[in-house]
Amino acid sequence: MKTGLGAAAALEAILDATPVMPPETIAVSSALGRVLAEAVESDRRLPPADNSAMDGYAVRRADVAGASTERSIELPIAYTIPAGGDASRPLEPGEAARILTGAPVPPGADAVVRQEDTESDGERVRVLVSPSPRENIRDAGEDVQRGDRVIESGAVIGPGHVGMLASLGRSVVAVHQRPRVALLSTGDELVEPDQSVDGGRIVSSNSYSLAAQCRAVGADPVYLGIARDTPEDVEQCFRAGLGADVLVSSAGVSVGDYDFVRDVLEKIGCGVIFWGVQIKPGYPLVFGRIEGGPLVFGLPGNPVSAMMTFEQFVRPALRKLTGHHKLFRPTVRARLAETLTKKPGRLHFVRVELERSGGDIVARGAGNQSSGALRSMTRAQGLLVFPSEDTELAEGAFATVQVLDDEFFASEEPGF
Amino acid sequence: MKTGLGAAAALEAILDATPVMPPETIAVSSALGRVLAEAVESDRRLPPADNSAMDGYAVRRADVAGASTERSIELPIAYTIPAGGDASRPLEPGEAARILTGAPVPPGADAVVRQEDTESDGERVRVLVSPSPRENIRDAGEDVQRGDRVIESGAVIGPGHVGMLASLGRSVVAVHQRPRVALLSTGDELVEPDQSVDGGRIVSSNSYSLAAQCRAVGADPVYLGIARDTPEDVEQCFRAGLGADVLVSSAGVSVGDYDFVRDVLEKIGCGVIFWGVQIKPGYPLVFGRIEGGPLVFGLPGNPVSAMMTFEQFVRPALRKLTGHHKLFRPTVRARLAETLTKKPGRLHFVRVELERSGGDIVARGAGNQSSGALRSMTRAQGLLVFPSEDTELAEGAFATVQVLDDEFFASEEPGF
Repeated sequence: MKTGLGAAAALEAILDATPVMPPETIAVSSALGRVLAEAVESDRRLPPADNSAMDGYAVRRADVAGASTERSIELPIAYTIPAGGDASRPLEPGEAARILTGAPVPPGADAVVRQEDTESDGERVRVLVSPSPRENIRDAGEDVQRGDRVIESGAVIGPGHVGMLASLGRSVVAVHQRPRVALLSTGDELVEPDQSVDGGRIVSSNSYSLAAQCRAVGADPVYLGIARDTPEDVEQCFRAGLGADVLVSSAGVSVGDYDFVRDVLEKIGCGVIFWGVQIKPGYPLVFGRIEGGPLVFGLPGNPVSAMMTFEQFVRPALRKLTGHHKLFRPTVRARLAETLTKKPGRLHFVRVELERSGGDIVARGAGNQSSGALRSMTRAQGLLVFPSEDTELAEGAFATVQVLDDEFFASEEPGF
Repeated sequence: MKTGLGAAAALEAILDATPVMPPETIAVSSALGRVLAEAVESDRRLPPADNSAMDGYAVRRADVAGASTERSIELPIAYTIPAGGDASRPLEPGEAARILTGAPVPPGADAVVRQEDTESDGERVRVLVSPSPRENIRDAGEDVQRGDRVIESGAVIGPGHVGMLASLGRSVVAVHQRPRVALLSTGDELVEPDQSVDGGRIVSSNSYSLAAQCRAVGADPVYLGIARDTPEDVEQCFRAGLGADVLVSSAGVSVGDYDFVRDVLEKIGCGVIFWGVQIKPGYPLVFGRIEGGPLVFGLPGNPVSAMMTFEQFVRPALRKLTGHHKLFRPTVRARLAETLTKKPGRLHFVRVELERSGGDIVARGAGNQSSGALRSMTRAQGLLVFPSEDTELAEGAFATVQVLDDEFFASEEPGF
C-alpha cells in the first residue's frame, strides 16, 4: 500500500484497476445517454427505394424535354402514388403520375417535377420546366447501404442514434451496463434528514450528495444506510455492498480512525492500493479492490471532502466503467478575480463561480472554502486547480478550471 | 395566422405563447436536474454547534499559553467527546478533553490542539504548541445561519444542492413540473420498427428520435402512435393528446397536405399562430395553441426536418416550461474546413462534426445534408448557422455553431 500519492498518480492507480462494464441488451427507447457496446451494421438500404423528395409529378424526361413556362408540355395523369403506396405499375411513355413526398418512384420515371412547376386540372398536368436527370428523386440507399457500419461501438447514444436504430428496424441494442454503486456512511453522530438534530447530531447528507453524483454520471446508487462506529456494524454494512460494482463509504478514514476501517477492509478481503492523496480538501482517500468484487473507495467524511474526492476520483472511474472514452469534465482557462494563496505541498481544488466577461471567463471564490462548508458546493460552477507547489495565483492570472455545471455552457441566445 | 416567418420571429412567437410549468413537490433524492420552484431558507445553523475541525484536544488557551516543543505543558485528559457525542460537561480550568473531528466543543474550551501537536499516554496529554483563539474550532453557523436564503428559486438542482437540502433536514422540495409531450406521427407508409418494411413501407423513426429529444431535455414523452392519412384518424390521435402540455405531430404539414392538418387543428380548437419558417431543413413548421390546452407543434415528416425543428423551436419551449432561464444550446465560433454555398432567402442549419485543432474548433460537414438523411444526425456534433441572406461561407472563415453533443466539451485529461 502506498500513502500520500500525488493526484495524478492516485488517478492512474484507480483507472488501472477499473474495468469496463460488460454489455447488456436494452430497448432502443431506453438507450439515450448509454454507451454502445456493439458496432451497428445495417441489414437494409435507407431509403429502401427510390422515392420522391417533393410533392409533384413523376415523368420520363424525354417526354418533357425543353418544357418551359412559355412552352409547357401537357401529359395525362395516369395514376397517383401516395407515400407508402405501390409503385409496381411502370410509367409508360407519354404519361405522368401524381406522386407525394416519400412515395416510391415508379419504374420508367427518371425525374419528379415539383408541384410548383406545374399546372393541373386533376386529369392532365402542364409541365413548365425541363427537369435534370433524377431531379427530386432520392436514390435508394443514398443514406445507408446494406452492410454499412452505421454507428461505431463506443458511441454515446443521442437522439439521432435512437432514430437511426429505429429506422434500421432495431428494437434492442447492446450497451455497457450501468455500474451499481453501494453507498454507506459511518458515524454515531449521523441521522437521516427527517430525524432530530438535537444534541449535536448532523444529517448524513453525504449519501444524498454522493447518490446524486452517481446519477449525474449515469451510475446506479444503492444506499446501504448509516453504519454506527463499531467494527461489527461497519463490517456488516460493507458486506452488504459486496455485490455492487463499486463500494463507496464516507467518513472513518482520517488519521485517528483509519486503523479501524483498515481492519474492516482486511476482514472483507479488500486489498488497499493507497491511502492518502496530496490534495485539499480530501487528503484521506482510501482506494482498494476486492478480488472478484467491487472497487472500494473510502472517502473522507466532511461533506465537501466527500464530494470532492468523488468528483476527482470516483467519477472518472464510473465514466470508464460505463464505457466512456472521455473520462473528465470540460476544462476552461479562467482569469482570477482575486488573489489566492496557500502553502506548498498539496494540490488545492478551489470552489469557484464563473462569469463570462468580454472574451474571458472570470473565476471568483464561491464562499467559505472549509471542507465542512457545503454551501460553497451549491454555488460552485467549477473547481479551480491550484497546483501542488504553487503558493500564489495572482488576481488577473489565468488558471485551469474544471467545469462542474453543464448549465454554464448553455446560452441565453439561440445563435441565429 | 402568419406564414413564412424568419427563424427569430418564429422563436419569439413560440416563447411568447409558452408558460412556465406549475410547481410540484417531490423527494429531494429525485430532484437532480430539476429546476427549483421555491427559495430555500434554512431553519437551522450549519454546523449546528461549535465543533472540532480536527482530531485532537479541547483546551482553555490560558492553560497552554507559551507551550512549545521545548517547553511543553501537560494536562490531565478529563474525558473524551466523540463525533455526535455530548458536550454538556464544561471543560474546567487545568483540564484537556480528547475530541474527534466533528465533535461538539465543550463549554469553556476556546481552542483545539490537533493530535499531531501533542504527545499522550492516554491519561495525560503534553501540548507542544500555543494555539491561537478558536484554532481548529468551526463556529456554529459558519456555513449557514438560521433564516439564510441558501438556494434561490430557479436554481438547477445539482448534487451540491441535493446534499444541502438533506443537511437542512428537507426531504421534499418544490420544483417545476416536467412537461408531458404527446407525440404522434401521421402517414400510411409508416410502420413500427419491428414490422415489415416490404412494399415501400418505412419505419416511423420520428417518434423514437423525438421521444429521445424530449427525454434529453427533461420532458416526459407520451407516444400516441401512428395516425393513418384520414381526417378521422388524425383527429382521433390529436384528441388523445389534448391532456398533455405539448402536442407534437410529425408529417402532414407540407404544401400538399397542409389544408388537411389545418382542418383537423381547427376542429380540435387549435389557433394556428404561424405556418412556415424560412429555414432549411424544416420550412413547413406549424405552431399553435389550444385555449386551456397544449401548445401544438406540427413538425415536417422528413426525419432530419422533424429533429431540426424540434431542436430549434420545441426544445427552447420545453426548457422554458421546465423553468430554465438559459433556453439554448451552447454556441461556439468554429472555423470552416470546407466552403459552403447556398441560395439566399433561408437560414440553413448545416450538420457538422467538430474537432479541436490548435486553439480553434474546426467544423466539417457531417455527410449528406438531405432532409431525409438521418445518418448525418448520428454524426453531427453541432449545427452550423448559415445566415439567411448569405450565399457563401468560405473555407477558413468562422461561423456560429450550436453544440448538440455535450460530450464534445468533455475532456480526455483531468486538468491537473
